[in-house]
Amino acid sequence: MYTGYNLEDRVFLAVDCIIFGFDDEDLKVLLIKRDFEPEKGKWSLMGGFLKSNETLDDAADRILHRLTGVHDIYQEQLYSFSDLDRDPVARTISTSYYAIINIEKHNEELIQQYNAQWFSLADIPDLIFDHNEMVQKAIRRLRRRTSINPIGFELLPEKFTMRQLQKLYEAILDKELDKRNFINKINSMDILIKLNEKDMTSSTKGSFLYQFDQEKYDKKKGDNFYLKL
Amino acid sequence: MYTGYNLEDRVFLAVDCIIFGFDDEDLKVLLIKRDFEPEKGKWSLMGGFLKSNETLDDAADRILHRLTGVHDIYQEQLYSFSDLDRDPVARTISTSYYAIINIEKHNEELIQQYNAQWFSLADIPDLIFDHNEMVQKAIRRLRRRTSINPIGFELLPEKFTMRQLQKLYEAILDKELDKRNFINKINSMDILIKLNEKDMTSSTKGSFLYQFDQEKYDKKKGDNFYLKL
Repeated sequence: MYTGYNLEDRVFLAVDCIIFGFDDEDLKVLLIKRDFEPEKGKWSLMGGFLKSNETLDDAADRILHRLTGVHDIYQEQLYSFSDLDRDPVARTISTSYYAIINIEKHNEELIQQYNAQWFSLADIPDLIFDHNEMVQKAIRRLRRRTSINPIGFELLPEKFTMRQLQKLYEAILDKELDKRNFINKINSMDILIKLNEKDMTSSTKGSFLYQFDQEKYDKKKGDNFYLKL
Repeated sequence: MYTGYNLEDRVFLAVDCIIFGFDDEDLKVLLIKRDFEPEKGKWSLMGGFLKSNETLDDAADRILHRLTGVHDIYQEQLYSFSDLDRDPVARTISTSYYAIINIEKHNEELIQQYNAQWFSLADIPDLIFDHNEMVQKAIRRLRRRTSINPIGFELLPEKFTMRQLQKLYEAILDKELDKRNFINKINSMDILIKLNEKDMTSSTKGSFLYQFDQEKYDKKKGDNFYLKL
């Protein structure tokens, strides 16, 4: 072995996933009720140990899939947590990831198997270890991202109304937005396609439907355009 | 041991530091020439293994101090790199940090001891492992941060001219900025104190000196204000 590689310095490396979903009203986080020690019976993020044949991204994908049944969802690496006693069993560093999934699309059976449940951000219970800190950090990162990139479109149906989009941003940013102001700012980003179609469920006049314009967005991305709401 | 904690899954955890400095013209990165294996003789970031009695932040601080002599400099955790074969000796995950230090203030003796050298971003050599990727990621993060927060003031003397500030932003963003536009945008952020003092070295008329107003900045921080340059 080369200098510096002391076997006793090795650590366990866990991956924990903050899974966000949106149900038309609220931004929610998916949590599991642990039926194993340590901290059996407490709420927790879904997580697992990094295996020798996978990268951190691989592990995050495996863990998300095991709980929700969904695969190949983009997850962003958030932060590596390393407090000395964060895990009472053994020195464990945890790299957290966050994912945004369509709340309709998870596999209900899997979720029940893990006693998992969606929690509104305002109702997140006391979690094991430093998991509350992870969730808070993920929310802050998501809010920041939302201001820089039009993240969040994956949370909406393919065609959506301005009202739905505003609701989503209000849920992520946790504040009410002025309707006219919101529409102006969104339009100034010029990344939506207005369809010749209306959603007639909300009013007799109906509301125009929109689509996210991936191509325009990809072109603009380099400019780091901002959406200050 | 509880389920899941398999000793053979443990990994080495390294910390690598991307150390930025600014010399009035260029943004630079501090690199060391390795005099140990593996990859002896190649350029590299300064790094080390996480020890059992320290957090990742502690390790980053120790590593920065060992090379530069400076302590308690704010470092931001960047990303954890985990490609399977990134380190040919043993499975090692590396958590990278970046720091911004005053290029004048490092300890010259220490730097020579590590055969370290400042490189302009345009001249970064071929580095060991995935260190080039780390540097590129740090530059992107720094550029993004610069647009959100007035990062970078730590790179300037306490009192500075608008010209110096513009030079710094041009170095970080790697593009020329229009002078009038820059001044307007900086002023609109309202986080500088204009001093009743001039720097007389640059012209006979002299240039007003400014200071960063930490108090105003702290108050505004919550608003996530942007500086789009």
